[in-house]
Amino acid sequence: MAVEGAGLQALSPDELEARLRAIGEERYHILHPFHRLLHDGRLSKGQVQAWALNRYYYQASIPRKDATLLARLPTTALRREWRRRLEDHDGDGSRPGGVERWLALTDGLGLDRDYVTSLAGILPGTVFAVDAYVHFVRDRTVLEAIASSLTEMFSPGIISERVSGMLRHYDFVSETTLAYFTPRLTQAPRDVEFALGYVKEHARTRAEQEAVLAALRFKCDLLWAQLDALHHAYVSPGLPPPGAFRPSA
Amino acid sequence: MAVEGAGLQALSPDELEARLRAIGEERYHILHPFHRLLHDGRLSKGQVQAWALNRYYYQASIPRKDATLLARLPTTALRREWRRRLEDHDGDGSRPGGVERWLALTDGLGLDRDYVTSLAGILPGTVFAVDAYVHFVRDRTVLEAIASSLTEMFSPGIISERVSGMLRHYDFVSETTLAYFTPRLTQAPRDVEFALGYVKEHARTRAEQEAVLAALRFKCDLLWAQLDALHHAYVSPGLPPPGAFRPSA
Repeated sequence: MAVEGAGLQALSPDELEARLRAIGEERYHILHPFHRLLHDGRLSKGQVQAWALNRYYYQASIPRKDATLLARLPTTALRREWRRRLEDHDGDGSRPGGVERWLALTDGLGLDRDYVTSLAGILPGTVFAVDAYVHFVRDRTVLEAIASSLTEMFSPGIISERVSGMLRHYDFVSETTLAYFTPRLTQAPRDVEFALGYVKEHARTRAEQEAVLAALRFKCDLLWAQLDALHHAYVSPGLPPPGAFRPSA
Repeated sequence: MAVEGAGLQALSPDELEARLRAIGEERYHILHPFHRLLHDGRLSKGQVQAWALNRYYYQASIPRKDATLLARLPTTALRREWRRRLEDHDGDGSRPGGVERWLALTDGLGLDRDYVTSLAGILPGTVFAVDAYVHFVRDRTVLEAIASSLTEMFSPGIISERVSGMLRHYDFVSETTLAYFTPRLTQAPRDVEFALGYVKEHARTRAEQEAVLAALRFKCDLLWAQLDALHHAYVSPGLPPPGAFRPSA
């Protein structure tokens, strides 16, 4: 594909930030029909189980994604900053990390933990979208890899909507089972403070800036594609592919 | 994921082949609802355009997939055998290869060629599934990579169904526009003769055989996932993701 931005004038850092936020307004998965159904209480327990089961693969892959990226960072300062994400998701032995907290959610929804961690019932569409994220941070520039994390600019908004909506509407979830989300409300903004600052400082040419914008679009697309796969398999038309989880609830 | 087959007895080569064929019976995309609609003439021209547009990315990526695999083959004999696939899809200057023939199909359907090759309207779900195939042959064993090509055992069947069905039902396709498929009817069986023979000879332990079966399941899953993405975006419920092609027909 042609190099975007060749010959165009570089944006100011604030204009770059504004365009990043506009991408979220356009395509962050808070706009996806599946999310609306989830937080409006319009899903069955089986459909919520399917969501949590598939989301586990994403959560479990975040440390692999972050470790892949960390391995490419050239300084101690950068690696220590990025290592915090590994601690957030894998834990540090004193409190559970994000992966463990997500398993508390799948436990609370009545899914067998061994089944969840076996990945046996996960939609292929989920796997392909999540693996695309891991491969992206392996194969693209460090600048693009860091930029692809910037959906964290938008995640506190979706977390509040999702947690309040799910607690209000589903008697089979509780504040305990949704405890995954609470630490994210402080971790995500801390991640963004670094990553957005890095991107605004290091994306100097228009081509670099367009690559940063494309990286955020890519990340939004992989989150959206996961909800598309869930929606098609479990909501409309409700056709799970061969081998995928079939809800009994 | 646990190593499949650990401790189980090795299969005979013929039993391995039988299990490979059974995977096709279970999950080859000839069974997908979208394929049925396509060959029964129940899609609009716009939906057929969307199919051809997205399939272009798959076709255009096959030479990358084959070159990635070829680079890992250790002998001249193996590389010359696999190089034939590059000639089949990229051509040899005397007759068009598969990629060029697919563009004849998109031309015939009224899609702008520059738009098609820009990849601008392709579904992210298509990209993630196809890229997963390229990454698979890069990252897995050579045995698994070769095994992942074995959906060619089943492709002549779907090609006949598709070509006859489309010619019968759509006045906007012709034998000329569907010329992509004719050479495949001889190329695919020739590919299979090598790849199936290789797999039957080299997959000696049960673990290797289970990996071969998993590779074919993976390939079936990525073909199925592409049709799921198309079906969700353009048929049911018909919700294209942000940025994707929107048919005017």
